[in-house]
Amino acid sequence: MQAVTTKHHPLALTAAAAALLCAAMAQAADKPLPARPTVSDVVKASPAADWRALDPDNTLYMQTAAGRVVIELAPVFAPNHVANIKALVREHYFDGLAIIRSQDNYVVQWGDADEANPKPVKNAKTALAAEFTIPLKSDKGFTRLIETDVYAPQVGHSNGFPTARDPKAGLAWMAHCYGVIGVGRDNDADSGSGTSLYAVNGHAPRHLDRNITMVGRVVSGMPLLTTLPRGTGAMGFYEKPEQAVPIVSVKVAADVPEGERSKFEVMRTDSASFQQVVNAQRNRGGPWTKYAAGHVELCNVPIPVREQK
Amino acid sequence: MQAVTTKHHPLALTAAAAALLCAAMAQAADKPLPARPTVSDVVKASPAADWRALDPDNTLYMQTAAGRVVIELAPVFAPNHVANIKALVREHYFDGLAIIRSQDNYVVQWGDADEANPKPVKNAKTALAAEFTIPLKSDKGFTRLIETDVYAPQVGHSNGFPTARDPKAGLAWMAHCYGVIGVGRDNDADSGSGTSLYAVNGHAPRHLDRNITMVGRVVSGMPLLTTLPRGTGAMGFYEKPEQAVPIVSVKVAADVPEGERSKFEVMRTDSASFQQVVNAQRNRGGPWTKYAAGHVELCNVPIPVREQK
Repeated sequence: MQAVTTKHHPLALTAAAAALLCAAMAQAADKPLPARPTVSDVVKASPAADWRALDPDNTLYMQTAAGRVVIELAPVFAPNHVANIKALVREHYFDGLAIIRSQDNYVVQWGDADEANPKPVKNAKTALAAEFTIPLKSDKGFTRLIETDVYAPQVGHSNGFPTARDPKAGLAWMAHCYGVIGVGRDNDADSGSGTSLYAVNGHAPRHLDRNITMVGRVVSGMPLLTTLPRGTGAMGFYEKPEQAVPIVSVKVAADVPEGERSKFEVMRTDSASFQQVVNAQRNRGGPWTKYAAGHVELCNVPIPVREQK
Repeated sequence: MQAVTTKHHPLALTAAAAALLCAAMAQAADKPLPARPTVSDVVKASPAADWRALDPDNTLYMQTAAGRVVIELAPVFAPNHVANIKALVREHYFDGLAIIRSQDNYVVQWGDADEANPKPVKNAKTALAAEFTIPLKSDKGFTRLIETDVYAPQVGHSNGFPTARDPKAGLAWMAHCYGVIGVGRDNDADSGSGTSLYAVNGHAPRHLDRNITMVGRVVSGMPLLTTLPRGTGAMGFYEKPEQAVPIVSVKVAADVPEGERSKFEVMRTDSASFQQVVNAQRNRGGPWTKYAAGHVELCNVPIPVREQK
């Protein structure tokens, strides 16, 4: 799906140059690998039953001037925080606030930049007990990756989210992969509420796992967040109010007229098609690939999303 | 160094709310962890001998309208490609070409967008034998991470680059971590030359390891590449010529007057300070962290860079 090509430049070689190259290429494993289905082949061939539409009641639309970011919430992993974020959304808490932080290869964060005079919260809660992990038995629909992981005894996917678990401790949690959303907090574990949220915009900062309540994942619109200018303040916060990127509104999809909803589907991570996706990412074949990895790391597994037009 | 905080919002709790929270926080491991040096503490305390200046002869400056991207080349891992890239730079091959691809969470790529009428190469080579791996014995200065890795038997750092190795096969290679630079190629393993280069702009696509000749790493200026609008064509290529981002020039630092050079230093990855950096990333302490990971994954290890002003 995602080869790094020279965009099919025909690079003509003379016979003499080719002979020289052949002599020098002792180490280059230039044997053709068997053709294998790519991730996009699997997506194209997958049956409708291996997909699910986003639940409008657990989908958020964050609107900026540049477009709509679509977020799937994960109530299983953070029931109280997800309920509170929806309460905040429904009292229009985020409308008129802003994206206030963009730290390269780490996170983009949104909420209230005005510490001196913060926007009041009406009905939602302003602090909640941490939901860093959940009991293993609450994490239904887990499909384990066969691969090991540096950070957790087991990793895999739970209903479309990258997750990790420790069976001995009886705990499961969402992993900090690209696009996953967490709840900013102060030093107190129970100081977060969802008024400040962030999305991972770079390599997975997995050391944050089990330190943050994770509430969902961006399923569309990541480029609207990742391409924002990096903040020049400490930790990538924007230093001047005019640098912050206004949030026009955040809405629960269920509150949006049906004709205005985005129609995204996520591949079921407990489906046969998803197993094929994982295998396609483990072992890429065909004419470009010279060495198939044979393994895949949790946050390098694509979780396919498609839009019904 | 990089906590995900609410920017120190004091979130006042009433005594009653606090009691409720305490009752609900059975799972929250809110014990204070011992204070530990952070990555930036280690950087501040590190002796000068644990740093090295970039070698001007193996440093490139890529200039766009938005600023300078500083690239450290890795001749040990790709001697022929690095020599050829410097030859291309010195014949001004890249000057006036452009960044032609920006694929979210994958790579940003530069070179010649004009397939029909490509810019001629004067003295440099237009194809080279692949340098996907090197003999293990050529990889001097390797410092191994104690952690396992999904993709390779051993991983660590070699003179400032994230690397992997297979002792049984006697091979070493650079790993596709954030900011690392590879050589685009066609299906033929030996079709790359350095006329088309890319940098990883998202989560490490480690499945590309051993499929590409890796030539270096961006040590400064990644935001100039990562914030570029994503291309809407296949694989994130820009579809229209006017979308491409012009490259003003690429120069070898040694060819730039000393007063115009950037004065970057990279922490020596075989130094005691670097071991402390790795440990700081493995086990974060202090008031914010509630759970220290105890481990670190290769591409989540920061490789400190600082600029002498």
